[in-house]
Amino acid sequence: MAGNSFGTLFKLSTFGESHGEALGGVIDGCPAGISIDLNAIQFEMDRRKPGQSAIVTQRKEPDEVRFLSGIFEGKTTGVPIGFIIENTNQKSHDYSHIKDSYRPSHADYVYEKKYGHRDYRGGGRSSARETASRVVAGAIAKQFLKDISFQAYVSAVGPIEVKTPYQDLDFSEIEKNAVRCPDPKKAAEMEAYIKDIRKEGDTVGGVVTCVIQNVPIGLGEPAFDKLHAELGKAMLSINAVKGFEYGSGFAGARMKGSQHNDLYNPDGSTQTNHSGGIQGGISNGMDIYFTVAFKPVATIMQSQPTIDKDGNIVEMHGKGRHDPCVVPRAVPIVEAMAALVIADYLLIQKAYK
Amino acid sequence: MAGNSFGTLFKLSTFGESHGEALGGVIDGCPAGISIDLNAIQFEMDRRKPGQSAIVTQRKEPDEVRFLSGIFEGKTTGVPIGFIIENTNQKSHDYSHIKDSYRPSHADYVYEKKYGHRDYRGGGRSSARETASRVVAGAIAKQFLKDISFQAYVSAVGPIEVKTPYQDLDFSEIEKNAVRCPDPKKAAEMEAYIKDIRKEGDTVGGVVTCVIQNVPIGLGEPAFDKLHAELGKAMLSINAVKGFEYGSGFAGARMKGSQHNDLYNPDGSTQTNHSGGIQGGISNGMDIYFTVAFKPVATIMQSQPTIDKDGNIVEMHGKGRHDPCVVPRAVPIVEAMAALVIADYLLIQKAYK
Amino acid sequence: MAGNSFGTLFKLSTFGESHGEALGGVIDGCPAGISIDLNAIQFEMDRRKPGQSAIVTQRKEPDEVRFLSGIFEGKTTGVPIGFIIENTNQKSHDYSHIKDSYRPSHADYVYEKKYGHRDYRGGGRSSARETASRVVAGAIAKQFLKDISFQAYVSAVGPIEVKTPYQDLDFSEIEKNAVRCPDPKKAAEMEAYIKDIRKEGDTVGGVVTCVIQNVPIGLGEPAFDKLHAELGKAMLSINAVKGFEYGSGFAGARMKGSQHNDLYNPDGSTQTNHSGGIQGGISNGMDIYFTVAFKPVATIMQSQPTIDKDGNIVEMHGKGRHDPCVVPRAVPIVEAMAALVIADYLLIQKAYK
Amino acid sequence: MAGNSFGTLFKLSTFGESHGEALGGVIDGCPAGISIDLNAIQFEMDRRKPGQSAIVTQRKEPDEVRFLSGIFEGKTTGVPIGFIIENTNQKSHDYSHIKDSYRPSHADYVYEKKYGHRDYRGGGRSSARETASRVVAGAIAKQFLKDISFQAYVSAVGPIEVKTPYQDLDFSEIEKNAVRCPDPKKAAEMEAYIKDIRKEGDTVGGVVTCVIQNVPIGLGEPAFDKLHAELGKAMLSINAVKGFEYGSGFAGARMKGSQHNDLYNPDGSTQTNHSGGIQGGISNGMDIYFTVAFKPVATIMQSQPTIDKDGNIVEMHGKGRHDPCVVPRAVPIVEAMAALVIADYLLIQKAYK
Repeated sequence: MAGNSFGTLFKLSTFGESHGEALGGVIDGCPAGISIDLNAIQFEMDRRKPGQSAIVTQRKEPDEVRFLSGIFEGKTTGVPIGFIIENTNQKSHDYSHIKDSYRPSHADYVYEKKYGHRDYRGGGRSSARETASRVVAGAIAKQFLKDISFQAYVSAVGPIEVKTPYQDLDFSEIEKNAVRCPDPKKAAEMEAYIKDIRKEGDTVGGVVTCVIQNVPIGLGEPAFDKLHAELGKAMLSINAVKGFEYGSGFAGARMKGSQHNDLYNPDGSTQTNHSGGIQGGISNGMDIYFTVAFKPVATIMQSQPTIDKDGNIVEMHGKGRHDPCVVPRAVPIVEAMAALVIADYLLIQKAYK
Repeated sequence: MAGNSFGTLFKLSTFGESHGEALGGVIDGCPAGISIDLNAIQFEMDRRKPGQSAIVTQRKEPDEVRFLSGIFEGKTTGVPIGFIIENTNQKSHDYSHIKDSYRPSHADYVYEKKYGHRDYRGGGRSSARETASRVVAGAIAKQFLKDISFQAYVSAVGPIEVKTPYQDLDFSEIEKNAVRCPDPKKAAEMEAYIKDIRKEGDTVGGVVTCVIQNVPIGLGEPAFDKLHAELGKAMLSINAVKGFEYGSGFAGARMKGSQHNDLYNPDGSTQTNHSGGIQGGISNGMDIYFTVAFKPVATIMQSQPTIDKDGNIVEMHGKGRHDPCVVPRAVPIVEAMAALVIADYLLIQKAYK
Repeated sequence: MAGNSFGTLFKLSTFGESHGEALGGVIDGCPAGISIDLNAIQFEMDRRKPGQSAIVTQRKEPDEVRFLSGIFEGKTTGVPIGFIIENTNQKSHDYSHIKDSYRPSHADYVYEKKYGHRDYRGGGRSSARETASRVVAGAIAKQFLKDISFQAYVSAVGPIEVKTPYQDLDFSEIEKNAVRCPDPKKAAEMEAYIKDIRKEGDTVGGVVTCVIQNVPIGLGEPAFDKLHAELGKAMLSINAVKGFEYGSGFAGARMKGSQHNDLYNPDGSTQTNHSGGIQGGISNGMDIYFTVAFKPVATIMQSQPTIDKDGNIVEMHGKGRHDPCVVPRAVPIVEAMAALVIADYLLIQKAYK
Repeated sequence: MAGNSFGTLFKLSTFGESHGEALGGVIDGCPAGISIDLNAIQFEMDRRKPGQSAIVTQRKEPDEVRFLSGIFEGKTTGVPIGFIIENTNQKSHDYSHIKDSYRPSHADYVYEKKYGHRDYRGGGRSSARETASRVVAGAIAKQFLKDISFQAYVSAVGPIEVKTPYQDLDFSEIEKNAVRCPDPKKAAEMEAYIKDIRKEGDTVGGVVTCVIQNVPIGLGEPAFDKLHAELGKAMLSINAVKGFEYGSGFAGARMKGSQHNDLYNPDGSTQTNHSGGIQGGISNGMDIYFTVAFKPVATIMQSQPTIDKDGNIVEMHGKGRHDPCVVPRAVPIVEAMAALVIADYLLIQKAYK
């Protein structure tokens, strides 16, 4: 337990806080003989890191990964892969003001109640900085799963939504704009909106959609470790996530069976895919697609009344560097978590085959 | 792994198929000294069981639980609680027609691909009958957590939705109608709608909302075992679930931080509760509330073209006894899974306090 | 946690006390398609059960297993296998005298301190009766691992030891005597000794040796889940076990490296096998052999002074039916646990290959 | 799984090879608010490290720990503690000769068969260097368990044994000699013997005894996670361990119940302690004591014939720096693993109380 490991056979254990010395982790169970492309890993890190564009937090971190074990002559050896990412740009003085008060809708209050002694700087372990370790591991998982594709994108920022089904979107557009939205017109709208939000000193939520293609049939372990249940847990564990749906999702709740059922083609594929590639909790070979809802980040630059340790009302003015909208940086995190789940479940399926 | 256990310190392991001899399970980790009210357990079973009303499947099962260990002189002894529920009303001949074909949107196809040798009768292990074991364990968990209340209800059937926030609903109405909707007017609409759906030989989806009150502060283990992530996995593991959201959910993605943040009262409670009682993955003492989306059950009484083992197109006509809408029976299952999560996480928090 | 599950991919969860209604368990993760020979399972149960000969406890239990799920048309379906074994011959009145006192060297005292409310009859969950469930699961594991042989035997009863190396013993002799010792002369000595011990109302300890042959290379997961470490945990979890050693064992501690090293043959096999078939925690294809030490059972028919709940000294006179020496019945339990470990680790190795 | 994590609530995950960049680990679940004395940790590291005396390997490593997270203002914060130990004194050229051959009784052969691609230098992950991470975590566990004492010592080197029971030994002598034996006369014998063994280019095995005092009653989770079973697994996972026994151990197998039973004193303590402080798998408050047998390290400086990748017989001459006898350095590792087990089981017991 203890909450900081994810996976059974392909397992990631992480550590690290926003203002500590370094973040890092251990990947245990990556099979041996996988060629590791370090540039591809750094590419994923760069997609996640702060300071990457005008619409995210301006904290500058190189987020360079240092691998300490488990890779020899460019290939995995099957033993644990340890890695660290040094924190270089903490501005801890920015946080002295919250030492004794609790920022609204942050984890400060609950961490105090749960742990007693907490590192208040930058949110400590509750900070999204912790997700850097997940992206490293997800990048390794992607290289293990080289035939499976993981593509996430921003499908909504506040009220601005991409209504086009993913099959009709051009994924090559995703990395061409700062928002990571494959619809260039919507992307421009979203970017402008986020800049306005930033000027107001406010934040806004959004939605990330993810598509996994070329998944083998048979991944998933009913009754409790259904594939979509594990994907849901993985996504809900990402900071600021409020909801998860896959396939037809909440819309499916309004449909009739005669409309919702996916009929078979002779080769076992289905004509429609409301199932989202998973039936009975097991992958059926069709595309897996799901969406993840992110609330607006709680740190806003506007004043908010809050309380201190003794229950006094105090004025909290946001300081530090923050994201007006977290979803562009969440895209590689969603892909990383999806890759970790698929890697783990693929190994489990190999065991039982 | 292997998928049939749920929980770490309060752990349930289940077995049993729709047309096997019996279902059952083992509850490991229920603390000693808890008084067990067997009638209360049977009450939960009766809320879940088939044949309970005109709007659910007409399979008649008494669903009586037989406890085999772990309870002595009316109290738990801290050792594993084994239990079984005999199947009495299987009509296996109803399923001979699907021995070699795959019902659309069921798990037949993926089970064949994953396991090879499968029990095709009634869906085997993929059948929702498996949830009977969960309700037994959830009922025990509820008795362990006697000060915490778990209340779920149907908040949507197809297009018919309850828009009233839960705080303004009368929970005493829930068990007074077959749908388990606390708004009597909506309940009547839903019941009529489901009967029409049944006449059409079709099925429809729905939504269940759940409220957990009086949760202690501090439950949840970041970064990966956040309380809402575990609740999400628990709910997504229930048959037919397509989505999960908590607190502001998907609506929160459209909000700004200035609107979404929950400001503190001097005593640590919050003025609003978009957080849904969980911040940073840890309970903060406020009500936990979430919604679960259910797709329409895949077994419909209308004819559907499908394929057989050899890829031939065959006509599938639904036989057997089925639910036109599963959400009334899902209400106790949602509560049961919520109780299992809270019991587990409460024990974990006790360890670390 | 909660202590009543064993294994990760091939997992057994058990329940049941000595004087409860029934024992049982769930085997989760046995691959699909394995033919199950129920007679072979009953054979293993009969090797373990009480009342089987004059040198064990005279409690008569048929120990018949009833399978409730997971086996269809004689083969496993890959879903959990639930089973129960009804208790028929509890003589609970035999235990009324220990309701408020603690039998020396039994678990009564610690169970009271740990759990508060305990089932005192027959030792409750602490009774070796619980091992019946392990033998069922081990029998299934053996059928899954049909090419691997598991052979255990009694190599010592009290001071009477078999000094012959296992390679020079005739395993076909093991089931021909009540002691399960492959040396007929020693077996006769042991049987006579046990009968004397019984007349004295006393008990005696013993040693079981186990040989596993034809294990594939590569089973074991360093650094913490080394194969011999898991075997050790498995054996130490059996009632009354005080020690475990494998390969050269404690004797190896007295040897020099030049004597102890196993030199290679060109085909990778080794000329000697002090390693006991496991190097660096991973199987190397040679025979795995280990020994397990059992203390004398704590229940003796002689009077012993002990204490009651209030710390008063009371006289305890052993009643009920007990084993003078447990090792003949422990032989199938040792094999069962070994099979569970090998099954689990074989699946894990399959995943990573 | 994947083998590189130990524990459930107090969990250690490690990484690192003999000739990699660094070793390290993550401790997840150490409760918050524990004061951390870094000097005490370095002291334990110094007890384990190579180059500490004339009777161990001459590889010089400072083995300095760098903590990266989870400790703030000198106290734990309840979030994961990440740490690394840089390797500084690898002499990788010493190992070029074994790139394609397998050292007898080492893990080279099985690692090749299991993983394919392996880091051959210095044994890679199979090297005892990996235990440095365990000592760090064990040192933290000891500080958490400040009222419980863990004392291990060398009780045998080759044929030289300490026959005095631990209660009659002076533990203050342990750190006063290089062997870590509390009997100064035996220690001198052992030291001389080891030096002779070194001159011969050979190695020898030994035995470590460990005593844990002041353990609370109630630790241990039957039926499978009995306290002594977990201790056994912990010890058997240490490199070169061939056997584990606790309390009366293998000697208990020769005893009668009337001799072996520990009778109670009115206060619940026992007059004798053959049980070794654990009954029914649960601690009873008496001293826990156990012994661990270590085989002679496989790397000897004498020539040995062995095979290469292609099955050819080649001459292997030991190079590099090695331990003639590993047990003096194993003493802190045994204590560390014992502390990890007790910490984990103490948290589990807290949960259920």
